Amino acid sequence: MTQLVNSADSHVVEPLDLWVQRLPKHLKERAPRIEEVDGRWLFVVEGMPPRKMGGPSQGSESRTKEATGFRPGGSDPDLRAKDLDEDGVWGEVLYPTIALFGYMIPDPELRWATARAYNDWLTETFAAASTRFAGAAMIPVQEVDTAVAEIERVAGLGLRSVMLPMQAPEGAPYNSDRYDPVWAAARSHAMPVSFHVGTGMNPVHERGPGGAVINYVEVGLGAQRTLAYLAASGVLERFPELHVVMVECGAGWLSWLMERMDEAFEEHAGWVKPKLAEPPSFYVRRQGHVTFGNDGAGVVNRDFTGVEPLLWASDYPHPEGTWPHTRETLARIFAGVGDDERRRITFDTTARLYGLELPDPKVDA
Amino acid sequence: MTQLVNSADSHVVEPLDLWVQRLPKHLKERAPRIEEVDGRWLFVVEGMPPRKMGGPSQGSESRTKEATGFRPGGSDPDLRAKDLDEDGVWGEVLYPTIALFGYMIPDPELRWATARAYNDWLTETFAAASTRFAGAAMIPVQEVDTAVAEIERVAGLGLRSVMLPMQAPEGAPYNSDRYDPVWAAARSHAMPVSFHVGTGMNPVHERGPGGAVINYVEVGLGAQRTLAYLAASGVLERFPELHVVMVECGAGWLSWLMERMDEAFEEHAGWVKPKLAEPPSFYVRRQGHVTFGNDGAGVVNRDFTGVEPLLWASDYPHPEGTWPHTRETLARIFAGVGDDERRRITFDTTARLYGLELPDPKVDA
Repeated sequence: MTQLVNSADSHVVEPLDLWVQRLPKHLKERAPRIEEVDGRWLFVVEGMPPRKMGGPSQGSESRTKEATGFRPGGSDPDLRAKDLDEDGVWGEVLYPTIALFGYMIPDPELRWATARAYNDWLTETFAAASTRFAGAAMIPVQEVDTAVAEIERVAGLGLRSVMLPMQAPEGAPYNSDRYDPVWAAARSHAMPVSFHVGTGMNPVHERGPGGAVINYVEVGLGAQRTLAYLAASGVLERFPELHVVMVECGAGWLSWLMERMDEAFEEHAGWVKPKLAEPPSFYVRRQGHVTFGNDGAGVVNRDFTGVEPLLWASDYPHPEGTWPHTRETLARIFAGVGDDERRRITFDTTARLYGLELPDPKVDA
Repeated sequence: MTQLVNSADSHVVEPLDLWVQRLPKHLKERAPRIEEVDGRWLFVVEGMPPRKMGGPSQGSESRTKEATGFRPGGSDPDLRAKDLDEDGVWGEVLYPTIALFGYMIPDPELRWATARAYNDWLTETFAAASTRFAGAAMIPVQEVDTAVAEIERVAGLGLRSVMLPMQAPEGAPYNSDRYDPVWAAARSHAMPVSFHVGTGMNPVHERGPGGAVINYVEVGLGAQRTLAYLAASGVLERFPELHVVMVECGAGWLSWLMERMDEAFEEHAGWVKPKLAEPPSFYVRRQGHVTFGNDGAGVVNRDFTGVEPLLWASDYPHPEGTWPHTRETLARIFAGVGDDERRRITFDTTARLYGLELPDPKVDA
């Protein structure tokens, strides 16, 4: 039996001139963009070193593909739907590519204009095209009031998740109660709050030997840290209906994090503040989620973590994603897993969190 | 059948006046020490904020116990052996308590004098008392030549492991070839190189809500990072007989780290340097190890990680350790695990790495 799945982490690829087109006139020159420099295509975003991304360019169906190496479905909803259909994927939670780096823009005016323009484009291009696309809005958090206003705005637009930077702004970590209005606003619209790896920081931590591998690990450590902040500090306890999703971090570490937090909570009780009503893992099991693609370790750990925190994801159209071999990947990592658990991890929980039910209940999911 | 186990991570507790007694006269006033300040006992080590440690004081068998809250077996080998015997533990790899913070001493003269005095005391007090105590020598790495000389010296004393700081000195990460003489020296004496969580850094990362739990997670992330540096950069490939041990970090994350590193190695191949002959996980399976106590997730993941990297540990006499309930803990986390695998994780691998075989082969291990 073929089962359609939902991907809890996929990416759009912004048109090269999205911000040049959409930013107010006085900001256009400083717009985030892709530029050809000495024959190499670079992402140029204020506050970040220029950066090459995507896979090596192959073919030239479009300038975007040539610049980023990604498939045209990254920016075209119809081509995207075709790719998904061939690969057995129904719905997707959509994260950006260039806008991932927008959290680092130092100037609040430029940062917020960048976020709003992205959220508008995402709405018009994907969210409006099909209910199978659940857009995650870019929400910087340096200015909490502005963040809350933008959450209200994107909820009205039909975007379905609030994407905050994985690394909180300096001096204002996620255990601070300054973010309570953000959690409250997301919760009031039943929008999960998601944190994509590598955001809010320079994702290039190490340039020496092993750097590419080390950096991919390092951004994953950020997900572990952020989930610990949210659970141990009482954010999840105070907002019991808030759901938080760590994105593109894999899932195999989650059992460890739960045990590690609970060990400190119980064995170092004399130092623990606040005294949560339950051990930290309780809140992660109830409200925390992680997305994973190829890695099977998270699935093996489901007896520790519970099934609810696990969200399968394709990471389309990134080179480390599962497209166009999603069925083979799923067969491998879910070997020996019962249909009910598999369906919850690959479809149901994401459907519930983001509104990605199949439109016709008679269609086999 | 009762099986004796080895603990790959246990702690001595240094006498309050170890360094005051042993440092050269002109350094005595700056010696690492435990001091009573306003009725609280604090560890005072140059380069670190003064710090309270150990559990709450109960009883007063000794000044050390009163100051640190740890059992007297922390500094007395005979009392220690009694505790181990009652708990079903044969051998132990011994790490320090106060000296864990010595890596942060800014002045090289004081730092090295602190290391040598600790290594001497450990040798005289524990290593000389019984072969069941495998001492890990404190080896700072800011000055590589001095580190190599101290490794040679402690190998001669009979210490059995080289303990480096988990966090490498600033500007000199562990992927740098400047450490090659250190790896070579450890290898030439068949001494595993170990990295204890929380060393080489201020282990108090977060003081706000959830801090105690967050910090315990954060020091564990350091172990993941360091192992990635050693594997991805080619250190383990270039020194194929070197063994590295991440200590007190738990084991449940290891499957994730292996998959994460391999994913980057394969999918981001265009950025990967050096091109290792095998994916990074290969080297971790062959030469990497992690210690864990209470947590069962690492055991569940053994089909991914292999059994060799897993080293059980009691963490005696720390409050989060398994003493005096080691047998119950083992029964819980090894439920359903075959005797052969259990024995390798709880005895054999540690015995082989550190020379902790039972003295009489007829005794049941």
